Amino acid sequence: EIVARLEAFFAPKWFSGHAVLVTAGPTYEPLDPVRVLTNLSSGKMGYALAQAFAQAGAAVTLVSGPVSLPTPLGVTRVDVTTAEQMRAAVLERVPGHRIFASVAAVADYRPARVSPQKIKKGAERLTLELVRNPDILAEVAALPEPPWCIGFAAESENLDEYAERKRREKGLQLVVGNLVQEAMGRDENTVVLYDENGRIPLPTADKVQVAWGIVRHVAQRLGLIDTAVERGDL
Amino acid sequence: EIVARLEAFFAPKWFSGHAVLVTAGPTYEPLDPVRVLTNLSSGKMGYALAQAFAQAGAAVTLVSGPVSLPTPLGVTRVDVTTAEQMRAAVLERVPGHRIFASVAAVADYRPARVSPQKIKKGAERLTLELVRNPDILAEVAALPEPPWCIGFAAESENLDEYAERKRREKGLQLVVGNLVQEAMGRDENTVVLYDENGRIPLPTADKVQVAWGIVRHVAQRLGLIDTAVERGDL
Repeated sequence: EIVARLEAFFAPKWFSGHAVLVTAGPTYEPLDPVRVLTNLSSGKMGYALAQAFAQAGAAVTLVSGPVSLPTPLGVTRVDVTTAEQMRAAVLERVPGHRIFASVAAVADYRPARVSPQKIKKGAERLTLELVRNPDILAEVAALPEPPWCIGFAAESENLDEYAERKRREKGLQLVVGNLVQEAMGRDENTVVLYDENGRIPLPTADKVQVAWGIVRHVAQRLGLIDTAVERGDL
Repeated sequence: EIVARLEAFFAPKWFSGHAVLVTAGPTYEPLDPVRVLTNLSSGKMGYALAQAFAQAGAAVTLVSGPVSLPTPLGVTRVDVTTAEQMRAAVLERVPGHRIFASVAAVADYRPARVSPQKIKKGAERLTLELVRNPDILAEVAALPEPPWCIGFAAESENLDEYAERKRREKGLQLVVGNLVQEAMGRDENTVVLYDENGRIPLPTADKVQVAWGIVRHVAQRLGLIDTAVERGDL
């Protein structure tokens, strides 16, 4: 924690006076009290991004699915379990935030019925009916006064095509794309940034450094870096 | 770690010369490279039991699903992801083990088809076909020369009935039952032991103490406690 405090002290305060809302981790979509459908996510990338924004001076709120990670220093954390809980927590808090970074691996579908008691196993085969979950990022980006929206695209193939399509269809300012094979559960990540100016690959690095690369890019895009130099914050 | 070494040094060595195989954690049953069906399990109870058996002198092998816990001191750990991988790891290693403790929350069902690429979301509703996973504990208990088998029953209701039925139907020497509401993700647990002599509730305690309660009960049932006294190990 002493190291974290020192890092935060010496970090450039590009985002002083700005509020940033970040989602991280998976969501758990219950079938019954013990079984869930989920997307694999350690939460590391979202937590690293929340920490980097906080160290860069932002007031950061982190809406987090179930993960086993400590809350980054200076970050306000709100714990949720399901996609619907995450949606409610985000929509309640997003007004007043300059930036929304949707890093959570929200489950796209949830079981249509949730059993209040543990389902006893029996049949050899079982059919599970799933319904679509809300698309939290698309909803936020479509608000009358949306924040600057950052989406994450974790794909197993066709990364450029899917990431660009996600950016255009949801009207996002930035998409951070990666191949799941190169990121999941690992401390390192290889990402490509997609924005209106094109495609910017970042070097492979640990998730903390990747987070700083993203924060720097956002600060440049929002014109906060020159301002900070003028204020003497660098 | 110094504390763990001291605890291990002073623990009674009831299980010296005995091999114990423990499973712990959840299994992940993939739909595609990012989505899984799983049972909620922190792995804490299984890890605590593996540690207690090791401290009590046993040679412990721990077959573990994906959890974020350190390997207990002196325990040999084998990592697996799916129920089928866990079955293979257990059946390969179980010969020569005196005791098999099945603590893992193995997913009862897995998706019938696994997509090699991430499934793109589309339809409002989706039907998922599931097939039964192997019952690892039942298979081990039905071996020609089975180890002494300990099962765990995590139920949301009717605990006595379900736990007793599990013990009789699978032919287990011991079932450790708990209510999921009182155990899941927590450090404490309230369990009841079910064996041929009936029902023995253990006091609510942290999972490490509960593990020691189970290990003591097993040592008594196997007649190892008096033997140990005679050997001067106490």
